[in-house]
Amino acid sequence: MRLHHIALCVPDIVPAVKWYVETLNADIAFQDETWALLDIENTSIALVLPSQHPPHMAFESLEAEKYGDLTTHRDGTASVYVQDPFGNTIEFLKPAATGATL
Amino acid sequence: MRLHHIALCVPDIVPAVKWYVETLNADIAFQDETWALLDIENTSIALVLPSQHPPHMAFESLEAEKYGDLTTHRDGTASVYVQDPFGNTIEFLKPAATGATL
Repeated sequence: MRLHHIALCVPDIVPAVKWYVETLNADIAFQDETWALLDIENTSIALVLPSQHPPHMAFESLEAEKYGDLTTHRDGTASVYVQDPFGNTIEFLKPAATGATL
Repeated sequence: MRLHHIALCVPDIVPAVKWYVETLNADIAFQDETWALLDIENTSIALVLPSQHPPHMAFESLEAEKYGDLTTHRDGTASVYVQDPFGNTIEFLKPAATGATL
């Protein structure tokens, strides 16, 4: 399975984006006041506010719905959050339909 | 920069390896009683005991020593743990010398 992103909790998005972009030589894929997505060489880092999301890992799965009811996001992806049996949070993320098979 | 692994804390390595291998279709790269390293499609997941390591992300850097004094590991890699300004732990990992340039 492919890791889509790791989500880290930070208290304020702007300084965290600055620190991670400089430290990891990351590219900003998305940023607003509540979260940001930074691309690095082999995956992405999400910076999130603790009031919005817990720290988690997100894996891409074409069968994400087998882990629970999916919530659809603005970009067409859909996902569900689950807990592993050991207290860690995992998001299973179904990619947006691309229409590539039309 | 490239993510080498994410380290998750689990209370017991054996059941955690079983769960993550099955759930993520991961391959076991290393396992002993204190930790395991599982390979997935684009990175690795380390399962660690909380008494040994904090949860962290490890990035590969040829200049890891610029972040602090490195500790050399049995496999020839060397690394240093640092805290980001927001409370997250990051390991900078210098790959083992391969002799490829001899």
